[in-house]
Amino acid sequence: MAKPYVIGIDMGGTNTVFGIVDARGNVIASNSIKTAKHSDFNDYIDELHTELSRLIKEAGAEDKINGIGIGAPNGNYYTGLIDQAPNLPWPSPIPLAEMVTKKFGIPCLITNDANAAAIGEMTYGVARGMKDFIMITLGTGVGSGIVVNGQMVYGHDGFAGELGHVIVKRSNGRQCGCGRTGCLEAYCSATGVARTAREFLELRKEPSKLRDYDVETITSKDVYDCAIAGDQLAKEIFEYTGTILGEALADFTAFSSPEAFVLFGGLTKSGDLIMNPVKEAFDRNVLGIYKGKVKILISELKESDAAVLGASALGWEVKE
Amino acid sequence: MAKPYVIGIDMGGTNTVFGIVDARGNVIASNSIKTAKHSDFNDYIDELHTELSRLIKEAGAEDKINGIGIGAPNGNYYTGLIDQAPNLPWPSPIPLAEMVTKKFGIPCLITNDANAAAIGEMTYGVARGMKDFIMITLGTGVGSGIVVNGQMVYGHDGFAGELGHVIVKRSNGRQCGCGRTGCLEAYCSATGVARTAREFLELRKEPSKLRDYDVETITSKDVYDCAIAGDQLAKEIFEYTGTILGEALADFTAFSSPEAFVLFGGLTKSGDLIMNPVKEAFDRNVLGIYKGKVKILISELKESDAAVLGASALGWEVKE
Repeated sequence: MAKPYVIGIDMGGTNTVFGIVDARGNVIASNSIKTAKHSDFNDYIDELHTELSRLIKEAGAEDKINGIGIGAPNGNYYTGLIDQAPNLPWPSPIPLAEMVTKKFGIPCLITNDANAAAIGEMTYGVARGMKDFIMITLGTGVGSGIVVNGQMVYGHDGFAGELGHVIVKRSNGRQCGCGRTGCLEAYCSATGVARTAREFLELRKEPSKLRDYDVETITSKDVYDCAIAGDQLAKEIFEYTGTILGEALADFTAFSSPEAFVLFGGLTKSGDLIMNPVKEAFDRNVLGIYKGKVKILISELKESDAAVLGASALGWEVKE
Repeated sequence: MAKPYVIGIDMGGTNTVFGIVDARGNVIASNSIKTAKHSDFNDYIDELHTELSRLIKEAGAEDKINGIGIGAPNGNYYTGLIDQAPNLPWPSPIPLAEMVTKKFGIPCLITNDANAAAIGEMTYGVARGMKDFIMITLGTGVGSGIVVNGQMVYGHDGFAGELGHVIVKRSNGRQCGCGRTGCLEAYCSATGVARTAREFLELRKEPSKLRDYDVETITSKDVYDCAIAGDQLAKEIFEYTGTILGEALADFTAFSSPEAFVLFGGLTKSGDLIMNPVKEAFDRNVLGIYKGKVKILISELKESDAAVLGASALGWEVKE
């Protein structure tokens, strides 16, 4: 029989957040450490072990942990390795699953952060009961986790679901962090919104509250603040962003015909400013046979919990 | 225990081809009838029953048929219905699976033609042993069948895998039969190649053997004949077509990270003329993490058998 708790770990470039989660998806205890503090990966694992052991002891959960799940940048479910993660301070590949399993004496599975979010959504969120949906994470970058027939799509090499790197502008596209041009991520991430703001401010002449900001350091939050205050140019930036995202989601539908897209991350806080153009562009562009069948939802999981919850769900999948 | 034979039926707009298939994928007998001959769907089913019963009797396969599988335009695996099929003479929806099951007294499953081809490829073709691949059918239209984790992707409504209707030209795209503009199918089908020929002949001035043909009725076969004979403009038409397809396949890779794409249908007969630009555009456009990992293959199944074989594989899935 499964033990009553699992551990979820969300490993980000800056912070690593971890929590103890029960079978109902309650985070009964959580804490965090600084990821980037340790130049040696072994030191990082040592601190993670010390802090997690303390948390487990305080919660009275010793010997009650079924498994550990980790969401990590470019974490590979099949190999247990982190590979080519641009935001982590250590050389790749990192045998994360194996090292954690050994250090804690508890079986560990890893996946990438967007897949972890999708698993969280399927287990505890708005996608409960859905067998086919696509999670889109709209943060600094754009990530995705795809569920088909009730299963995560990992692909033959464990790296499926990089929809942030589908090309949405074939010619004259923006440079993307991946080295190519025109990726969805270059337009529909938080940084993409800031880039659109810079472009619009340069190319257009009308007055805008956005002109009070330093154009070099403007953020998607600034654009949001101005749009909420009624600024027309700021609203158009969200329309531009949402339209590109809606067109992309329409194309993605032709792949797996999902019951829903679940959007997650900072940009979804902009609410109708982004969701209205997304839905309008989706309806205008989706193939007839899918019309009116696909929901576009915003995740209802608390952002601070979602990544930990999602990762923790892998802790129920482990085999001893 | 399963009975030793299955029936595969490939239902096209013009002909319906059917065959008796053994467990090793040998078509032990086959025949065809004209689909379009019958304005009443019941008459069509009657003729199909008569001809198939004769074939079964001649093959000594009475009471030895495990199941019937049908690949049909817009055939839905879940519902057993044909829905909104533009090339069939009968009003939709057509309860195909139920009617065949009743008429023959043998359980029947249906799917669309591209999915049937993918199942055939996985069961008997170059995709044997692959758990993640994408079949692309390049015929009058462009179809697709997607296999993830060893399973067909049907989507929540049974209509997944319409990659021919992903938008490859966002502005100024060609009109597509689906009512939208810029679809992959409008460029990379046989009719797409003919349209490209017409465009090139109109916009460009250099001499070409293609100018000997009537521009209104030119076909992809004409373009092929000219290219093989060394005509430069004809070769460029294949380069243009292959480049668009290669770029699209690179994007599709970001979805399910397949081990291979399997290309099937008339256009693949053009061999290197189309495959070289497909592979070059794929390599130039695919995300770094997938580079060098994805095969682009041509189906090795005989085209006349492939659809029947693919459909027949569903005959092993049926439950009595």
